[in-house]
Amino acid sequence: MLLQETIQKIGGLNEAAMHQAQERMDNLIKPPGSLGELERMAVKMAGITGNPRPRVGKRTVIVMAGDHGVLAEGVSAAAQEVTAQMLSAFTGGVSGIGVLARHAGANLVVVDIGVAGEVNVPGVLNRKVRPGTANIAAGPAMTKDEAVAALEVGIAVAEAEIEQGSTLIALGDMGIGNTTPSSAILAACGGFDAEEITGRGTLINDEVLENKKRAVTRSLAVNKPDRADGVDVLAKVGGLEIGGLAGVILGCAAKRIPVLADGFITGAAALIAVAIAPACQNYLFATHLSAEPGHRMMLEMLGLTPVLLAGMRLGEGTGAALAMHTVEGACRVLDEMLTFQEAGVTDMEEDKLLRDN
Amino acid sequence: MLLQETIQKIGGLNEAAMHQAQERMDNLIKPPGSLGELERMAVKMAGITGNPRPRVGKRTVIVMAGDHGVLAEGVSAAAQEVTAQMLSAFTGGVSGIGVLARHAGANLVVVDIGVAGEVNVPGVLNRKVRPGTANIAAGPAMTKDEAVAALEVGIAVAEAEIEQGSTLIALGDMGIGNTTPSSAILAACGGFDAEEITGRGTLINDEVLENKKRAVTRSLAVNKPDRADGVDVLAKVGGLEIGGLAGVILGCAAKRIPVLADGFITGAAALIAVAIAPACQNYLFATHLSAEPGHRMMLEMLGLTPVLLAGMRLGEGTGAALAMHTVEGACRVLDEMLTFQEAGVTDMEEDKLLRDN
Repeated sequence: MLLQETIQKIGGLNEAAMHQAQERMDNLIKPPGSLGELERMAVKMAGITGNPRPRVGKRTVIVMAGDHGVLAEGVSAAAQEVTAQMLSAFTGGVSGIGVLARHAGANLVVVDIGVAGEVNVPGVLNRKVRPGTANIAAGPAMTKDEAVAALEVGIAVAEAEIEQGSTLIALGDMGIGNTTPSSAILAACGGFDAEEITGRGTLINDEVLENKKRAVTRSLAVNKPDRADGVDVLAKVGGLEIGGLAGVILGCAAKRIPVLADGFITGAAALIAVAIAPACQNYLFATHLSAEPGHRMMLEMLGLTPVLLAGMRLGEGTGAALAMHTVEGACRVLDEMLTFQEAGVTDMEEDKLLRDN
Repeated sequence: MLLQETIQKIGGLNEAAMHQAQERMDNLIKPPGSLGELERMAVKMAGITGNPRPRVGKRTVIVMAGDHGVLAEGVSAAAQEVTAQMLSAFTGGVSGIGVLARHAGANLVVVDIGVAGEVNVPGVLNRKVRPGTANIAAGPAMTKDEAVAALEVGIAVAEAEIEQGSTLIALGDMGIGNTTPSSAILAACGGFDAEEITGRGTLINDEVLENKKRAVTRSLAVNKPDRADGVDVLAKVGGLEIGGLAGVILGCAAKRIPVLADGFITGAAALIAVAIAPACQNYLFATHLSAEPGHRMMLEMLGLTPVLLAGMRLGEGTGAALAMHTVEGACRVLDEMLTFQEAGVTDMEEDKLLRDN
């Protein structure tokens, strides 16, 4: 019910606000287009919010954590217990996202949507749908009902944060082994061969990489996910945190709140969200290009352009949090710079310009 | 005298501090190397400052402004008067760099080192070496003494800011037509043909682009700059703001203060600075990759890696100011994240890892 209601609320961008924003942007005291992606970001923010001079106010990073039965295939260098252990480092502010969320002036919401063991960490929201997925190389990750439940957890968490005033939401993930289901989602949604798109994730060696490619290939052969049905792909080869993050995207889109993807895992969540409701692409921003090779393909499929190229591949929302500064800067440029007329600066000779937008 | 003294003070990075920083970085609760360029930034900051856990304190953007006699060749779409007009927009905080310096929490220092007309803008430092360069397509931009004077203006401005507590300095430029001398510097220092490296700068049309390529080619043929002698290249085909910015780099390097390059023009200044004192490369960071095609070649020559890829080409220090958030984030990660031991998190299985650094 919540899922269907949410999907129905997702609309298009506000064209009038975008037109006003673009007009102002083109008249600011700089050569038109010279702030590149920042200009497109600010105009998209206008379209999302309906405000021709949007600002970034309260901001939130939502990290969803879950475990993965596919670890049984030997696909990761790290132990499953690390997923749970990291949660107290998140809430304590001493992990990568703990530090970078603080640096972004964002509050950090950590959700246990599917950690295998019991999590007793103060400050972690308990929204466990099930204690980890089943092994996708042997069967579906979860039932369809569980997939819908994971999506609805994400929607509800996003709605609660928006209710409390959040104006910009970044996505983060935690889940040992979760590049494997993300690779399976990319292969399923893009029609790719597992061999070409499966990368090393967290610096695994050749043997583990072979295990991972085999697991991705088997997950597709065994489950036959239907790429026209995002819920089906999620249930068969996804993860609980991936479903939760897809839900956050849908929830933000329904409330017209911009949402920042992070790296490969949140990219997989975006593929699921867009498969479920294509219009949610309007509310999504790419932030950085991950070192994981398949991420570039995901962003192409999503039609999104990253601004940070720092070779990051940590996840947790670290790239998205870092890019919050850029999104805010883009909005401040549009709002705080003056136009040629306002500033009394001689405009460029129009006939010598090749406007590129 | 000041120039020679400054060059002699420029030393190497503090290897002990870098080693300590790298060791801590590798033990933080994340897969080793997973924060990519942020990790290398933080370790370099340790080497620059001698502090194994460096922090970013007070920060400054220094914008140098100058005019260019080569405008007579029809190389730009904008009028020369714009250089002077922009200065009050800078100090008023309503230009691109005005907004993005404020967003970075940086103070903005604007220097008239060679604007053609008289500048009567409160807050602009008057350090005019001469009112614009001569036309480089017809002869040298300036005398050798003037080139040294421009470098020394930059050194002195940097020293004054460092004296007042600045811990991180970003470079910005203003000068209508200054992609032309920057292209000439790139061609001279890299041994490139003007045709291959001259780009459109500020969206000029085909006719203006042809004028520009011809002007760059002539500037090299007429002046024959000696690429082994940075002062010679600066005097013959450079600009006053480019000399000032090269001086800022030298001044920062001598005081062991990190300095952030911006785009194509500050890249040309970095080529001059490195030609004069190769060790100043140790103190330089690239920030973004400009849309100007030659910028990539400059960064390769300088051995620097950008982190922002946003298609910006405004100059003024806008990309460098935006990257201040990233440099600060990198330092905060190193200082504020915990190690596996400190956090009680299970380390990854070493034998499954391929450490990449």
